[in-house]
Order: sequence, then C-alpha cells, then structure tokens
Amino acid sequence: MKIIHGGVTAPLGFKASGLHCGIKKSKKKDLALIVSEKICDAAGTFTTNKVQASCVHINKDHLKDGRAQVIIANSGNANCMTGESGFENSRSMALAAARGLGVQKKDILVASTGVIGKPLPIKKIVGALPQLVKDLDKHGSESAAHAILTTDRMAKEVAMEFHVGSRRVRIGAIAKGAGMIHPEMAIHTPKHATMLCFVTTDAVAAPAALRAALDRACQKTFNMITIDGDMSTNDMVLILANGMAQNKKIVENTKEFRVLAKALETMFLAISKLMIRDAEGATKFVEIFVKNAATREDARRVAKSIASSNLVKCALFGSDPNWGRIAAAAGYSGAHVDPWKLVIHLGKEAVLRNGGRVKQNAANLNRIFSQKNVKITVDLGLGKFSASSYTCDLSTNYVRINSAYRT
Amino acid sequence: MKIIHGGVTAPLGFKASGLHCGIKKSKKKDLALIVSEKICDAAGTFTTNKVQASCVHINKDHLKDGRAQVIIANSGNANCMTGESGFENSRSMALAAARGLGVQKKDILVASTGVIGKPLPIKKIVGALPQLVKDLDKHGSESAAHAILTTDRMAKEVAMEFHVGSRRVRIGAIAKGAGMIHPEMAIHTPKHATMLCFVTTDAVAAPAALRAALDRACQKTFNMITIDGDMSTNDMVLILANGMAQNKKIVENTKEFRVLAKALETMFLAISKLMIRDAEGATKFVEIFVKNAATREDARRVAKSIASSNLVKCALFGSDPNWGRIAAAAGYSGAHVDPWKLVIHLGKEAVLRNGGRVKQNAANLNRIFSQKNVKITVDLGLGKFSASSYTCDLSTNYVRINSAYRT
Repeated sequence: MKIIHGGVTAPLGFKASGLHCGIKKSKKKDLALIVSEKICDAAGTFTTNKVQASCVHINKDHLKDGRAQVIIANSGNANCMTGESGFENSRSMALAAARGLGVQKKDILVASTGVIGKPLPIKKIVGALPQLVKDLDKHGSESAAHAILTTDRMAKEVAMEFHVGSRRVRIGAIAKGAGMIHPEMAIHTPKHATMLCFVTTDAVAAPAALRAALDRACQKTFNMITIDGDMSTNDMVLILANGMAQNKKIVENTKEFRVLAKALETMFLAISKLMIRDAEGATKFVEIFVKNAATREDARRVAKSIASSNLVKCALFGSDPNWGRIAAAAGYSGAHVDPWKLVIHLGKEAVLRNGGRVKQNAANLNRIFSQKNVKITVDLGLGKFSASSYTCDLSTNYVRINSAYRT
Repeated sequence: MKIIHGGVTAPLGFKASGLHCGIKKSKKKDLALIVSEKICDAAGTFTTNKVQASCVHINKDHLKDGRAQVIIANSGNANCMTGESGFENSRSMALAAARGLGVQKKDILVASTGVIGKPLPIKKIVGALPQLVKDLDKHGSESAAHAILTTDRMAKEVAMEFHVGSRRVRIGAIAKGAGMIHPEMAIHTPKHATMLCFVTTDAVAAPAALRAALDRACQKTFNMITIDGDMSTNDMVLILANGMAQNKKIVENTKEFRVLAKALETMFLAISKLMIRDAEGATKFVEIFVKNAATREDARRVAKSIASSNLVKCALFGSDPNWGRIAAAAGYSGAHVDPWKLVIHLGKEAVLRNGGRVKQNAANLNRIFSQKNVKITVDLGLGKFSASSYTCDLSTNYVRINSAYRT
C-alpha cells in the first residue's frame, strides 16, 4: 500500500473539474464535478442529524440501486432548510449534470456546503455546467478539491495504490471541513459537521463491500474528530468504484476486503488530521488516546468527551496544562470511569495516578502544552479497549470567525 | 409568596460568615460558614460526574440520616482528584468545624470549588476556623455569598417568604457559578459544572419532602442552564430546614409541599438567571423556549442542545441571526424532530416555517440578535410538551478567561 499523487483522478477512468460559478462573493471556486467514464458501484454514508439537506435525501434515493457515475458539488450554500424549492434546486442540479454528461439522473450524486437557509442560486449552477463539463480533466482533482472548500484554508486531497491479487488498484479522495465539525455518520442515517469527502477507485467491489468498508473506516476516523461539537446537516462521504482495475471482485469478509477497508481508513485518518490542522482558528493539533476501557464504546465516548470539552480546548489554547478539566470531561462522558484507576499522561509525563496528582515540573508540563502537537493519554484501567479522537484548541480566533460567518 | 432580603440568614435561627483564609492569591474571601442554631432536616443533590470531589462523597455519607446543621465551604480549590489525602483534608475541614461549633462531625456538610488536582491548604482553613466562628452573624449571608465565588463577578443571594397554614416560613439561598456550568444534578448521583447553592429554611419539612422538592426544582432550573457544556466534579445544592417556623410538617404530595417546591423553583430560576448574567465573558442572556415537543424529555433535549451549540453561541456573540445553526442543533439533539414541522422565531419574528426560511427584514433580525436579552422560540409541532433552557453567548473573552485560568 503506498501514497500516490492525483486525488480523485488518480484511479483509472476518472476526470474532475472545478470553477467559480458565482455562489461565493469572493472569486473563489464554488462548483465541482467528478465523473467516471463508466457506471460505478457506489455507496455513501450521511449525517445522522434529523435536519438534513436535500442533497442528503436525494443521494440516499439515488444510491438505492448501489450505482452512480457522477458527483456534482457546490460550496457557499448548504441548500438546507430551503423548503420544497430547495429540493427542486437539488434535483435541477442533478438533472443539469445528467443532461450535460449524457447519463441518467439517478446516477448523479449531489452535495452542497455553506450557509443554511438561503435559496441556492440554481441558475448560476446550471449556467456554469457546460463550462464545468468542458473543463473535465484527468488532472482535475485539485481544481475540484478547491471548489468544495468553505472556511478551509487548504485543499484536502489524498490517493493510494494497493494490490488485489496481481492487479494494481488506485483509490483517491478529496474532502473539505474546518468548522461545524463533529461528524457521526452512518450508512443509513448519518450525524455532525459539514464535512464532505468524495472517494473514487478503479477497484471492482460489491456495493455491500463498499458500504461496509466506508462504515468501518468512518467509525475510526471522521466520526472520531471534533472541531466545535456541532454536527452538520450536510455531512457525507461518497465512494464511486468503476471497476477499471479489473481485479477479482472485492466482497465482504475476505483478505481483499480488509485491504480496501485499511486503505480507506488510512486515507480517512490522513484527511481527518488535515481537517483538524485546518480547523477554524486552531493553533494546536491534539490527539486524545484512551486505553484500557471496559468497552470499545466507552473508549470512544471518553475520547470524544475530552475532545469536545470547551474548557480542555481553552486550556490547550492557553498552553495551561490544567489536567483536572480532562479528568472532569472523562467523568461526564457517560462511560464507566473509576477515578481511582484513572491515569492521565500529558505527552509522556504522568499527571494523575491513584486518584491524585503526580508531582511534575510545572515548566516541563507547560512546555508540553505549548507544542503545536499535543498528545493526551487517558488510561481507564478497566478493560482492554482503546480509541483515539482528534481535536484542536478553542481560540479567540475561532469565536471571531464564527461570530461573523455570514457578515 | 414574596421576595425578602437576607439570603441564607433570612430564615429564623441561621447565622453565616465569610473571610479570607489564604487559599486565593487575591485578598478575596475564600471560606464560608453557615450554621443553624438547631439541628436540621437536610437534603442534597449532587453532580452526576463519575469523577467527584471528596466533599461530594462526604456529604452523601453525612446526609444518610437526613440531618445536618452546618455548611462549611471554601473557594479557590476544588479538592478534587487530590487522592486519599484530599479525602483526609475534607474530613479535617468537617472535623474542625464540628469542634469549633460543638456539633457532631456527621452534621457538617462540606463544599469546595476552584482548581482541580491541587492539594487543599487545610492548615489555612483550620487556622481560620476560630475567627470564622467568631464572625458568625445574623446578617452574615452576604459575607458567606462572597466567600464561595470563583470567577463570578457578583455574589448571588435570594430569599423568599411564604405561608404554611397560618405560619410564616422563610427560605434563603446563596450560590456561585460562572463557568464549568452545565449542571445535571440528581439526588443520588449528580452531573455538570461547578455550581454551588446552599439553601436554608426555618420550615418544618420531612427530609423526603426536601429531597423531592430539590429534585423537582433543579430539573427545571439549574439542570436547564449551560454556560460552556462542561459538567463539574463538585456541583451541589444543599438544603437545611431547622423547623423554627413551627409550621405543620411539610410532607410530599400536599398543597404545602407544592408551595415549598414552587418557592425553591422560583429561587433557583432567579439564581440560574444570575449565573447566566454573570457567565464568564458573556455579553448576552439567551432563553431557548421549546414548545410542542412529543415528550418532555425531547423538549429539554432540544432546548439544551441549542443552548450548548458553540456555533449558535458564536452567532449570538456576533449578533448574526444565523438561524440555520439553531435548526442544525435541534436536529442533532437526539429528540424527535421533523424539519417540515419546525418553526423558529427570533424574538417575535418567524424565520423558519414549512421547511424553509420566512423572508424577514435583515436589519430587523440583526437588531433582535443585537439586544442584551434574546429569546429564541422553537416549535417542534409534534406534541404538547415544552421546556426552557438558559444560556449566554460564546465570546472571545470567555476563551481568554479560560485559557489562563490557573496562570
């Protein structure tokens, strides 16, 4: 398994493009297209928020047959809570792409991200479609990656290559997400943050295998990051597999399936970390590693509870190694926690053991919390399960960015 | 039922005092004492955090017989996660008060609030005890109210008077709390934020009635506020009833019980609002009123989810009426939400109905969100239950205060 260049256009048979159609007030790109030359097996996982954008509903419908060929996505407008006309607009977006590309409407997947509640300027999208199709390029991944960004400062692309038997298979992805990030996605009903991730592969894989691999990879990666605890209405991860690598078909519970799932997990973890590094206002990258939990769910709960704590995140911003807040957040996570068994390390230094502090050099702890990368390890001492969550600090800049998002 | 002056010393037979014993680096008061001249029926409700300070454990133990006479409380140090010696220190604090006042140790209740994980300077507390006892005063409530504050800018006191039959009964309280505020307290196992509230009354009331009235009042008040979503290890509400009003004994499920419960609820709501107004860095007071929910629990969940959303709170700080974030937070609350039935009002102006925005004058909405007091109404259109939560905005100042809390 190795990292390669090319993002979503790294796999055989995929082209992409991105341009500015006029949704964003800035002149930045706001419309992206990803097209496979062949029909694909496909799957998606979506936000579990009960308020879901029309694109989420439409994709679930279009994915019922496990097939798709195109992804069209806009940034700058979430097309969520925009009433019946919002649904019409998402359908028009799919229809325009279908016509422009000569494929069936049910094989188009649609995604939107941006402000909630504002009508989507559909005419701009439809009007730009011919140019967007014309711009499709074997090296268009980067352009598409830029066109789906909102508050992100950098485009997020990754691609890998691995073997299935003797056949070389490629898989690539582009993603966005820097705020409203606390994804809890599920195959049928998904959950937090606008994060979008589009994956392409030339592997031959059964839709059920794609769904299972997506779900497994998301649980350990996207669903374990949080920037601000707010779950979006538009989160989605889509995968298109066009089979052009001509490998033996990947089905569940096989060695090949595990390789595919591992590749997805590796890519998603890399993208998750990029999202945290690009998080709105963030000055630090933080891993919360929880070990020896009684159950896997407990490990995940404690890791996400600490990662979501505003007080822990403020302490990180201020480089103040106030580990009491970490213990408190573990305690209210809902997981089984025994304070007498809890051991907390900041970097490599133990700070809590046997229910009380471990004396440490204060300057040393301050130095650990002053780094750009901070690792916090929480040993629950109750079992054998572990999980990591990834987060950033909560800065005055985050508040500034989000208090003036629309103005 | 009427508001009176005097806080915890308004009821007959109570004295209080507060002084600076040296825990805080500033010269502010940090040790408080509340004493009844007679033994009291008593009850408490505590944080449901699994990590609980030693004072929480000790009080649960001391309240097993439903009796107590004294509350001793320090600020500036939470005495939490301080190991076996932390428990010893809480016990020493109770013992010193017991000796100084000539009452049994099991009738002393102890409370601490401040930094987690630092050894409590018990010698300073024990050393100051004689003076603290000497200072006990029939008008000492305000002094005690100041001595329990941490980041609070103002002392929080309230007292009321009502009748049980022909007897006049008084009830008073002091409280603290401005950060780490997201209480979810329960009688046996409590949950979020350091908030402390000490209640005194001269009513004659059964311990079971006191517990039930506390629980009922907390559910609608303290457990419905959030400042930062972080639940403390030390939250507690304690009540002492010394019976000196000589009313007919208040027992559960009677008219008198409902009057007592209503008085507590009224006081706790007033204190809850004071806490929000005094919240760290807050510039706005916000009520989230949720109505027509399918269940009471759903109404509470939606109200607290919106009140806890960092993005909603940043929008409030920036006076940006970005109601899409409100809809998103309702959607991820876990409650039953139908986006097509959801109606959202900012102040008196509808902004969302029938799944899409209601066109409003933008300047008007901006004006509503610019007020010091903002009311957001969310109609779920699914049933008949309602709930209110109270919160504040998330400001750059909140982040500043909490990034340098210990330094």
